[in-house]
Amino acid sequence: MRNTLRAVALSALIAAHAAHAQAPEGDVAWSILAGLTSEVGPRMPGSEAEARARVWAEARLKALGFSNVTVEPFAIRGYVRGRDEASLTAPFPFKLAVTALGYSGTTPEKGIEGEVVYFATLDALKAAPAGSLIGKIAFIDHAMKRAQDGSGYGPYGQVRRAGPAIASGKGAIGVVIRSIGTDSHRNPHTGGTTFADGAKPIPAGAVSNPDADLIARIARSGKPIRLNLTLTGKTTEGLPSGNVVADLPGRDPSLPLILVGCHLDSWDLGTGAIDDAAGCAIITAAALNAQASGKALRTIRVLWAGSEELGGFGGKAYAAKHAEPHALAMESDFGAGQVWRVNFTIGDANKPLADRIATALSPMGIVRGSGKANGGTDVEPMIEKQKLAVVDLDQDGTHYFDLHHTPDDTLDKVDPADLAQNVAAWTEVLKIVANEAGPIAAAP
Amino acid sequence: MRNTLRAVALSALIAAHAAHAQAPEGDVAWSILAGLTSEVGPRMPGSEAEARARVWAEARLKALGFSNVTVEPFAIRGYVRGRDEASLTAPFPFKLAVTALGYSGTTPEKGIEGEVVYFATLDALKAAPAGSLIGKIAFIDHAMKRAQDGSGYGPYGQVRRAGPAIASGKGAIGVVIRSIGTDSHRNPHTGGTTFADGAKPIPAGAVSNPDADLIARIARSGKPIRLNLTLTGKTTEGLPSGNVVADLPGRDPSLPLILVGCHLDSWDLGTGAIDDAAGCAIITAAALNAQASGKALRTIRVLWAGSEELGGFGGKAYAAKHAEPHALAMESDFGAGQVWRVNFTIGDANKPLADRIATALSPMGIVRGSGKANGGTDVEPMIEKQKLAVVDLDQDGTHYFDLHHTPDDTLDKVDPADLAQNVAAWTEVLKIVANEAGPIAAAP
Repeated sequence: MRNTLRAVALSALIAAHAAHAQAPEGDVAWSILAGLTSEVGPRMPGSEAEARARVWAEARLKALGFSNVTVEPFAIRGYVRGRDEASLTAPFPFKLAVTALGYSGTTPEKGIEGEVVYFATLDALKAAPAGSLIGKIAFIDHAMKRAQDGSGYGPYGQVRRAGPAIASGKGAIGVVIRSIGTDSHRNPHTGGTTFADGAKPIPAGAVSNPDADLIARIARSGKPIRLNLTLTGKTTEGLPSGNVVADLPGRDPSLPLILVGCHLDSWDLGTGAIDDAAGCAIITAAALNAQASGKALRTIRVLWAGSEELGGFGGKAYAAKHAEPHALAMESDFGAGQVWRVNFTIGDANKPLADRIATALSPMGIVRGSGKANGGTDVEPMIEKQKLAVVDLDQDGTHYFDLHHTPDDTLDKVDPADLAQNVAAWTEVLKIVANEAGPIAAAP
Repeated sequence: MRNTLRAVALSALIAAHAAHAQAPEGDVAWSILAGLTSEVGPRMPGSEAEARARVWAEARLKALGFSNVTVEPFAIRGYVRGRDEASLTAPFPFKLAVTALGYSGTTPEKGIEGEVVYFATLDALKAAPAGSLIGKIAFIDHAMKRAQDGSGYGPYGQVRRAGPAIASGKGAIGVVIRSIGTDSHRNPHTGGTTFADGAKPIPAGAVSNPDADLIARIARSGKPIRLNLTLTGKTTEGLPSGNVVADLPGRDPSLPLILVGCHLDSWDLGTGAIDDAAGCAIITAAALNAQASGKALRTIRVLWAGSEELGGFGGKAYAAKHAEPHALAMESDFGAGQVWRVNFTIGDANKPLADRIATALSPMGIVRGSGKANGGTDVEPMIEKQKLAVVDLDQDGTHYFDLHHTPDDTLDKVDPADLAQNVAAWTEVLKIVANEAGPIAAAP
C-alpha cells in the first residue's frame, strides 16, 4: 500500500506540472522520457538520430550512477524513408494520409498509378486468383478492434507484415493497407513489413483509418478507384546501430543477473514517447529505486536495445554477444498505460517467489493472470538462449494502438501519474527478484 | 416533445449503422453530409473541387424538390496550396507537422532557413522592437483553451489572422504559429491570414499543438532554435467560385423570405465534414421538414455559400446581388455538436414570436440565452443590408476546435444522433418563423 500512496502523492505533484509536460526535479523516469523525446527526437533504426540517442543514453546512464555503461554496436538492414504520398485519382482527386511501411519497395519519383482492388480482409486477398492483381494496386481493409491487452496486434498485424508479400505474389504493383490502429485521426500507422522467401518487394503503404473509411465507402458504391502511390524510401544494408547496456552491480556478482529491457530506437513519424522511451524510463527508474536503500543482492542490468522496430536486431545482438549467467528477464514495451496484471513463466520451485511478487502487487490493484510471461522482442532471444524465468507486468493498452507508430506518439500523450504507477510496480518486482538468494529458473 | 422523441428514436436507428457511417435510407441530412465528403471531397475556395461541389449541390437540391435552384458565380482572390514542410535544423533535426495559412507568402522550392524567435503571446510579438526580427522566423505560441461556445476563437484567432502581418512589419522572413486548436494531435490547423494595409506577405504556417509544445520546451531550455520553412503555395487572383441558392416557395410569395445559410466550400486538409457540410445538411433537411405537411406561408431560401473560408466571399456576393425583401436569417456553421442555446436579434414587436420559439425548443433541453444573435459570415452581409431579424441556434463547440481546419475534419467525426438533434431543433424554428403572418423585423 505504501507504494500506491506514494504513487498517488507523486501523481498529485506531477499533475500540477502536467500542463507543460514538466515533472518534479529528480523524477528519473520523466526526465528520461522527456530527454529522449525532446533532446533527441525520433530515433529510426540505423539513423544518425539513433546514434545520437546512444550518446545521450550512455551519458545519462553514467550520470545516474550505472556501472559498465557500454555501447555494443552492430549493423542492420535498414529502411531510409523517402517521400510518402498517395492520392486517389478516381472517382475524384483526393490526397490520402499515407506512410510507407518499413522495407517497402521503392517507387519512381513520380509514383506509380493503377486501379485499386479492394479486399475486406487478408483472407480475401489470399483467396484472390494467381495473377489477378497484375498491374494493379491492392487495398487491404480490416479495421482493428480495441483490446486492453493488445491481443489484436497479432492477427490484425498480419495484414501489414504478410499482406504486401502476398499481394506481390499475385502480381500487384503496389499495396496499401488500412493502418493497424484503433484511432480515427488522419495519422497513418507505419511499421515493418517483410518480403521473405524470394517475394519481390513492391511499394507498400498504410493509410489512416478515416482515409480507409473513405476508400471503403467508395468501394461499396461500386465506382472504380484509381490511386497514385509515391514511396521513394529505400531498404539499405549495413546501417550502424547498437545496444546500450548498463549495470547496477549486486552484492553477490556470482549470482545470475536480472535483465530488464526496453528499446532505444523508435519509428520516425513521432518521437517514440510511448514506443518506447517510456519503457526505458520505467525500467531504469525502477532499477535505481530497487537499490535505493543499498545494493541489491543480484546485479540488475538494463538493456536499451537498438533497432527493435525493424526486426528486433538489438535483442538478437545482445543474446549473441552475452554468455554470462542470467536468471530472469523482464521488458517494458507497451506504452505508459498502468500495469493491471502480472504473469509469470517460472519453475515450480519458484512458486513462492511468484506468490510474493503477486502479493506485493495486489495492493496496487494488479491482478495475477493465468497466462504465460513472454518478455518481449528485446529480451526474448536471451530468454530462449538461457531458458530464463520471466515476469510480465501487463500494461493497459486500451489506447496504445491509437498512437502506435504514428506521428502522434509524442511526450504529451504520457500521463505522468500512469508513468509513476509503472515505476512503482516495477520497483516492487525488482526489489523482490534482485534480492532472491535461491536459484531462479524457468519452467523446464 | 414529439420532436425530441422522434430524434431519440432516429438516433437509435442511426446508431445501429454508425460503425460504417451509414444512415437510414431517406435521411436527407446524412445523405448531404456523406455525399459532400465522400462523393466530392475537400472543396477549397476557387478550386476545381469547389466547382464540382456546385454541380453536385445543384443536382441534389433539385432532386430534393427545391425550386429556383441557381448557381450564382463570382470570382475570388484565392490561395493555391503548394508543398508545406517545416523542419527544425537546430538544436536537432526534427520534421514538424505544418500547414501553410491561406494567403501565406511563398518560399523558394528549397525553403527559407533562419533563427527562431519565440513569442509566448501575440502581445509579446507586438512589443518586440521595430526591426528586431530582420532575417529571423517568428514563432508565436499561445495555446487555445476549450470553450463550449467557441468564444476563444475571436482572441486566439488573432494570432493567425494578425500575427503574420505584425511579424512581417518587424522584419521577419517567416512566421510559424501554434495551431488555433484544442487537440493534441499532430494535425496542424490551417485558416486564412491577412496582409492588409501594405504589409509585405511573408511565408506563414501553423504547426500542430504537440510540435508547438516541443518548440516551447526547447525555447525554455534556452537552446537556439533554427527552422527550415517551405511553403510553396501561391495567392492567386481571379479564381472562379459561386453560391448555390434554392427556394422552397411559400404560400404567400409577397411576404419577405426566410434565409438559411451554410457554406459549401471547405479547407483542403480534411473533407469539410463539420466545416461545413454538416451545416448545409442541417439547414436543408430542416427546411424540407418545415414544409413536410404542406407549403409554409413564407418562402424558405437555402444559401450554400462559396468561398467562405478565405474571407466570406459568398455572403458578400449574395448580399450584393439580392434586393428582394428578406425577413429573418439563420446560419449553421459550427460543426454538428448538439444545439444547447437559442439567441435572438429581433424587434420588441416580435417578442411573442421569440417566446414561441424558445418555448418550442425548451422540451429539447435548449436554453434561452441573453446574448445577441449574429447569424454568421454567410448571411451577415444580407443581415446588415436589410436589417434582418436573426435567430442563432448555438451548438456545443466543446470539441469543435479539435477538428477545425485540420486533416481530421472527416465524416467519421459526426455523430448521427447529434446531426439529427440539430435538424430537429432547426425544424421547430423554421416551422414557426416561416408560418408567421405578421411583420418580422430586427431591433431598430
